[in-house]
Order: sequence, then structure tokens, then C-alpha cells
Amino acid sequence: MLGQQMTLSPDPQPLRTPRNWKLTLSYDGTDFHGWQVQPRRRTIQGELAHALERITGETVLPQGSGRTDAGVHALAQVASVALLAAIPPPNLLRALNRTLPASIRVLGAEVASADFHARHSVRAKTYQYRIFRGEICPPTLARYVYTVPWPLDEDAMTAAAGRIVGEHDFTSFAAVDPDRTQRRETDGTIHNVRVIHSSTWERQGVERQGDLLVYTLSGNGFLHHMVRNLVGTMLEVGRGQRTADSILDILNARDRAAAGATAPARGLFLHSVSY
Amino acid sequence: MLGQQMTLSPDPQPLRTPRNWKLTLSYDGTDFHGWQVQPRRRTIQGELAHALERITGETVLPQGSGRTDAGVHALAQVASVALLAAIPPPNLLRALNRTLPASIRVLGAEVASADFHARHSVRAKTYQYRIFRGEICPPTLARYVYTVPWPLDEDAMTAAAGRIVGEHDFTSFAAVDPDRTQRRETDGTIHNVRVIHSSTWERQGVERQGDLLVYTLSGNGFLHHMVRNLVGTMLEVGRGQRTADSILDILNARDRAAAGATAPARGLFLHSVSY
Repeated sequence: MLGQQMTLSPDPQPLRTPRNWKLTLSYDGTDFHGWQVQPRRRTIQGELAHALERITGETVLPQGSGRTDAGVHALAQVASVALLAAIPPPNLLRALNRTLPASIRVLGAEVASADFHARHSVRAKTYQYRIFRGEICPPTLARYVYTVPWPLDEDAMTAAAGRIVGEHDFTSFAAVDPDRTQRRETDGTIHNVRVIHSSTWERQGVERQGDLLVYTLSGNGFLHHMVRNLVGTMLEVGRGQRTADSILDILNARDRAAAGATAPARGLFLHSVSY
Repeated sequence: MLGQQMTLSPDPQPLRTPRNWKLTLSYDGTDFHGWQVQPRRRTIQGELAHALERITGETVLPQGSGRTDAGVHALAQVASVALLAAIPPPNLLRALNRTLPASIRVLGAEVASADFHARHSVRAKTYQYRIFRGEICPPTLARYVYTVPWPLDEDAMTAAAGRIVGEHDFTSFAAVDPDRTQRRETDGTIHNVRVIHSSTWERQGVERQGDLLVYTLSGNGFLHHMVRNLVGTMLEVGRGQRTADSILDILNARDRAAAGATAPARGLFLHSVSY
């Protein structure tokens, strides 16, 4: 255009340093095969990578604070990803929410320090497991709760929940990790010791819909299926099939067979991650 | 077996009189093609008929209080159906909930008088329309609300809602009925006069998730798309594109083109039906 300087040969491409991003996501996991990318399957990580590629043109694989299984939900999962794009944070936030399906929302997009990594930098994680206490679960809740209509001794469940606070070897509550990414000791044994900061059951009213019984668990790390195996075992305590104190025996056994059933994925929410 | 009398020829089949049932249903309409049975499509009426056939062996078509469109939900839809099966009501309730998908629940099953008909006997119906007032709709709400993040003059919307209370010709708010089941006058014209008993907007807090703006509408009958067309038009009032008083002009026009857009199905709930 007249008056503008013509650039006949392009400047040498400036060296661009990628910026590291911290993304906070909420999702309804019902219709996804979990967090982790898999060939020909809809996953949260895959949808996020696809949206980032559509927005920035960059092929990236965002790292989550950890995987969530198929059907597990998140209120505030955290992902980190390095991007060359010089996009302002509010614009990336809006563009992601325009591109992603309504079942995945980005609640926050901020530039993080270069050494931030959504998984390696985790200090603590909190999970919630929601149980609907009634005969007939409202359809609008059905994707997000496990319905348990039979009587439960909630005091015994609360006692059982308290037994796991502190540092314990949770081998008995761990499924075999399908990807063998477990931490190993220097002698090669798998490191299944984790610290649980809090572990509580509480009732929450649902307007006109009966009651939820909600388990909230915080700790420095969680093994595969650990929360669902803890919930399944504590439900057996609630039914009187196990005692609250038996939780200590189960921990000591270091044997998955010593613990109870795995509670269904749909009641589980990754609640928050702290760094 | 020894000691039991053998019946060598069956008694003549006793004359069985069918009992008339009133079923109350709640459903998440997202994954269904509406209430009404359609070939090769999942519908609420079709799922209910299929469940009744599996339980009783009887091929029946339960009648609803009215159709709900694809994606529209129900908190308490009512259906009537005649069944020969001599099944106690609590057993039919349990069997239906064991057979139906979790997105359809039967909240009540009771024997009704022979002249009860879920549609013909309706005295009044109540609908609710839920609008999420925030930038980012939580994924667990996304199937059940319409997200409207822009400013709305809620006082003007409340005024507009009040204008439709009473007896009016709602032709301007009616889609053409695809099945031509509309009531007709003796001269063959379509009868689009309905009585609205109440029409209100109110705010409802959602724990940690921002606010809902909920429209509740009761009346003696509703035309096809009438609630969604009213909501779409009142949202235009809220944005300042129409005045509250313009609702009266729209009613007088008796012309669908005079009214506003159709609000999305996912925010609409059939709340209750009274007889």
C-alpha cells in the first residue's frame, strides 16, 4: 500500500521463545475415554490439543496434573503447555471455550513460569466422590453420582475415612497401573507411599432432590483407582461388611485383594490441584 | 409335585379388565428425539413402551400429557396407559426403573380411574426455562441451561412476562404444528387461545457456579414451541431490542414473524402437570 514500506525479503525469522501456560479445566467425563490421548478415541487431552492446534497452529500435547479415567469428571483439572503464539490470556481463554465442546470448559488461562509443569509441580490434589442417597436418582444428576439407596452406617464410614489420614503405603488400594508410570524406589520396587492430608464424609442437601453423601480426600498423590477403591471399601464398612479399623489391616496387607470393590467412575470428581 | 393338585386342562382364561395407570416421569431429554415415538429413533415414549413390554409382555403406547421436543427435559411428565398385568404399583415402579436407562426415571406409578387420560384430563401445566448468567457454563450444567453472558434488563423481562398472563391468542408464539393436531374451531380455524395463570422470572443461586435466571410459566395449554418462542422474545426485551409493551403488539399480530427467536431446547423443563 502507498506510504507503507515494502518488505521485499522477509526479515530472518526472529527467535521466538515459547511461553509456558497454566490452563484450568472443568469437564463432564461421561462421554470421554478419560484424560489421556488414545488413537481414534475422544479424550480430554486430545480435545484440548486439537483446540490449541486450531487456535495457534501449533501441534502440542498439554500435560495434565494427572490422568482421570473414563467417566471421571473434573471441577478444576490443571494442564501445562508451551506455546509460541503471542496470544493474550483472555483471548486464549475465549478462543478455547469457543472451540471446545460444552462438556469441557477452560476456567482459567494464565502464563506460568518456565519451570511450571502441571504434573511434576503438584503439591496436593483434592478429589470428591458423590453418592446419591435415595431410591430414585434424578436424571439430571445421574451422570454425576453413584446411587446407593440401602442403609449405611455413616459414622463407621467417617471413622474409616479418618484411618487413612497420614503417610501410608496404599498398595492395597491401587489398581495395576496400565502404563507402568509408577514411581519406583532405587531398588526398583514401586513406590506406593502417599500422604493423605484430609479424608471426610459429609452430607450435602440437593434442592428438592434428596441428599448427597460426599467424600472429600486431599493428599500429595494418588495411585491408579485409589479413590474409587477407598470409596468402594468404605461403602462396605457402611453396610457392616467390614469394620472401620479393618482399613488399617487392609493397608498393612499391601494386597489389592484385601480391599473392597471399585466404586463407579461417574461419582468421582477431580476437585482441585494445588501448586 | 406330590401333594399338589395337577391341572390337566387350564381353566378358561378369565376375562381380565385392564387397569388404567398414571405414571410420573423425569427425564434428561438431551440424548432423545423428544417424547413421541419415531421409527428408528430413541424417544421417551418409545423407551417407556419398550420397558412396559419387557415387564408385562403387553404391547402398549403410553400417552403423555403432551409432547416434549428433542432436547427438552421433564421434572414430572405424566403418562397414562392401560395394562392387563396384575402388578402391584411399587413393583411396577421398581421394575420400570430397573429397565429404563438412568436418563429416564419413573417417580410414581399409581392406578388411576378408568377415565383418566394424561393429555385430555390436563387442567394446567407448568414449564421452566433455565438461563445461566455467566461467561463460562460449568460442564455439569451445560445440558440443562442456555448460557446468556451479556447484560439483560431483568426488570423489563419481568414486565414482559406479566403482559401474557390471562387469556390470549398465542398464534404469534406458535410454530406450525408438524402433526397438525392443533385444536380447531367449528369453522376449521386453528384454536390458539390459551390461558396463562402465571409467568415470572426469578434468580436462583447455584452453589459456587454463579446464577441462574429461571422463567416459570403455568397455563391451561401450550402451543408448539410456545415457551421457547416466549423466552426468545423476552430475551430480546432484556437486550433492549424490544420493549415489554411490544409483547401485546406481538400477540395482536397473530403472526409468528412478529415474535423473536426460538430459545434452545436444552434450557426447557416440563416442570409439572396438574389434573
